[in-house]
Amino acid sequence: MIGNFTYCNPTKLYFGKDALEGLNEELPRYGKNVLLVYGGGSIKRNGIYDKVVALLKANGKEIFEDGGVMPNPTIEKLQEGVRRARAAKADLILAVGGGSVCDYAKAVSISVHCDEDIWDKYFIRFEDVSCEIVPVGCVLTMVGTGSEMNGGSVITNHEQKLKIGHVFGENVFPKFSVLNPEFTFTLPVYQMVSGIYDIMSHILEQYFSGTDDNTSDYLAEGLLRSLIHSANIAVKDPLDYEARSNIMWTATWALNTLIAKGKTTDWMVHMLGQSVGAYTDATHGMTLSAVTMPYYKFILPYGVAKFARYAVNVWGVDPAGKSQTEVAAEGLNRMEAWMKEIGLVMNITELGATKAMLDGMVKSTLIMDGGYKVLDEADIRAVLSASF
Amino acid sequence: MIGNFTYCNPTKLYFGKDALEGLNEELPRYGKNVLLVYGGGSIKRNGIYDKVVALLKANGKEIFEDGGVMPNPTIEKLQEGVRRARAAKADLILAVGGGSVCDYAKAVSISVHCDEDIWDKYFIRFEDVSCEIVPVGCVLTMVGTGSEMNGGSVITNHEQKLKIGHVFGENVFPKFSVLNPEFTFTLPVYQMVSGIYDIMSHILEQYFSGTDDNTSDYLAEGLLRSLIHSANIAVKDPLDYEARSNIMWTATWALNTLIAKGKTTDWMVHMLGQSVGAYTDATHGMTLSAVTMPYYKFILPYGVAKFARYAVNVWGVDPAGKSQTEVAAEGLNRMEAWMKEIGLVMNITELGATKAMLDGMVKSTLIMDGGYKVLDEADIRAVLSASF
Repeated sequence: MIGNFTYCNPTKLYFGKDALEGLNEELPRYGKNVLLVYGGGSIKRNGIYDKVVALLKANGKEIFEDGGVMPNPTIEKLQEGVRRARAAKADLILAVGGGSVCDYAKAVSISVHCDEDIWDKYFIRFEDVSCEIVPVGCVLTMVGTGSEMNGGSVITNHEQKLKIGHVFGENVFPKFSVLNPEFTFTLPVYQMVSGIYDIMSHILEQYFSGTDDNTSDYLAEGLLRSLIHSANIAVKDPLDYEARSNIMWTATWALNTLIAKGKTTDWMVHMLGQSVGAYTDATHGMTLSAVTMPYYKFILPYGVAKFARYAVNVWGVDPAGKSQTEVAAEGLNRMEAWMKEIGLVMNITELGATKAMLDGMVKSTLIMDGGYKVLDEADIRAVLSASF
Repeated sequence: MIGNFTYCNPTKLYFGKDALEGLNEELPRYGKNVLLVYGGGSIKRNGIYDKVVALLKANGKEIFEDGGVMPNPTIEKLQEGVRRARAAKADLILAVGGGSVCDYAKAVSISVHCDEDIWDKYFIRFEDVSCEIVPVGCVLTMVGTGSEMNGGSVITNHEQKLKIGHVFGENVFPKFSVLNPEFTFTLPVYQMVSGIYDIMSHILEQYFSGTDDNTSDYLAEGLLRSLIHSANIAVKDPLDYEARSNIMWTATWALNTLIAKGKTTDWMVHMLGQSVGAYTDATHGMTLSAVTMPYYKFILPYGVAKFARYAVNVWGVDPAGKSQTEVAAEGLNRMEAWMKEIGLVMNITELGATKAMLDGMVKSTLIMDGGYKVLDEADIRAVLSASF
């Protein structure tokens, strides 16, 4: 474990088929006014909205609605949410939805009492929160982002063609999250598979960095093996509770700070994917899968030992009689075949990206410095060009 | 993941060579009176005591001493600590030591404001805490028990020949823990190896239960692989920071509730070991190692699929051309060879147990019901008899 670090994750999780009853424990801790945040209305069709509203009313809450949060929440929607939260004098923001809804709820929670320009402060200057925070709770209906147990929030600015994530500290984490795997059952398979790859990419982007041999990397390998095992079951039978529950739990632990402790991390796949997302508005997980192989094949020569370890420990490649590079390449080949098999999008053309967008996507890709090679603009152009 | 469960772990961890500076962040949160709890005085010889006292004084604290906590803290010492904490009007109990000192500090913290008989209430009737709790912080100097991030507390009653652990809820968890791997460097190798096996047994006793295929078991395998890897380095070079830091981090995550989520657990090795400990006062981890092989060989036929998975995923046994039972047995054989190699005690005779104690140890072994076979008294006698 390198360096000094702290670990603290105060989010309380309620997990399982009866997890929503956790609201009866949590709601009494907060004041009367609840801003109920959700997306396009699927929760009204599948009955989750009614269940949540009934519990809010049973606990004497006054409900203020804030629906219509889009898959890539925009700065304009965020500003609207802040106005609604202020008007409601919200004591609690309850997010019912997937990662976008949770991300959005957190962004509202840190902006209600903030007088500055929210976009500039949090997503351009990456400043910490300096005002009072309205507490957030989450009821998760889609799995992948890990937003239910971390301080991450990704907001899109279409005018500036930027999709930027800020990972805030533990004061911004949801106070509680409700994780009922059955709440994810009505999700279309495309969205489920996209979420599975979002989880996988979270793990890999923390794993493919550093040469030390720390516990975090071993935990990452465990999460990857569990995810692959359960994903194989879930794509065949999306109603398999055991598989869906393991995927849900894996998603939470993939991005709640644990497996980044005592090591460096990469995050270039997310930077590339977010740039594609800003231009295409495509589903987040698919933007990641579409740039993954070009990126990993590009950096493999610089991190061959770790890619070989990945091949053996995660994909069961037999290293006998092979060079380290051969082992590493075989691991990526197995991963690529698996990605196609479970239905991931493998190029950005399919997501609506065109060559005319290339210059813009290259310019808007943030460069991180924790990977096996720090990319320059030409590298980013090469990786994105290979992603069409 | 089976059943409904909650997860919440509020302990804040400060990890690394500068971790003790975390006291400057934590101490201002608490009142002036600090009960400083420690063991036999090794912290005075290695300088940790002076560093802690300097930080307490710099933060304006009044220090009340409570040293002399023994490796297996007794009910009499606990009663003494409660008297000291009351006399000090302690606002914070700061434990500086290993798991026994942390366990003891937690037991004091829940007893200061309790008017009932502590032993009967907490360790015989296993009741929850119903009184105010004095907050606890830990500075860890020995690795193994995981006490720094959980609600566990084990107390020994010599008069009744009982050593009993109670796992309390998150309100009893330490508020913060300081984990500096270098603080464990002066520990004798025998104690280090004992701690390593305590960690391993924690993981295995949660792993060897249930037939479901959940994420917790994959995480357990990751922790086991990391532990074995780092233990092999540490026994050769106890001052290897990377190895000792990974062992320290693995210990915390082996028993902070995470890898028990969504599954059943066993814990019979601890029950057998604690019974041996109550009669011999032997080092905790060694009581576990000494009964492990007899117990696992006894239950192997009832959990052969999991033992075979363990052999392949943790010990790298090649299953080709072998029966499941052969694979499982080969895994245990490799484990046994490794245990001897790193210097673990493999029988209870070496710990001072005699045949004259057998009846008593059998009677005082608590029977748990989560393992692959629920033992009866004859089974316990058989396992303990095979442990001499």
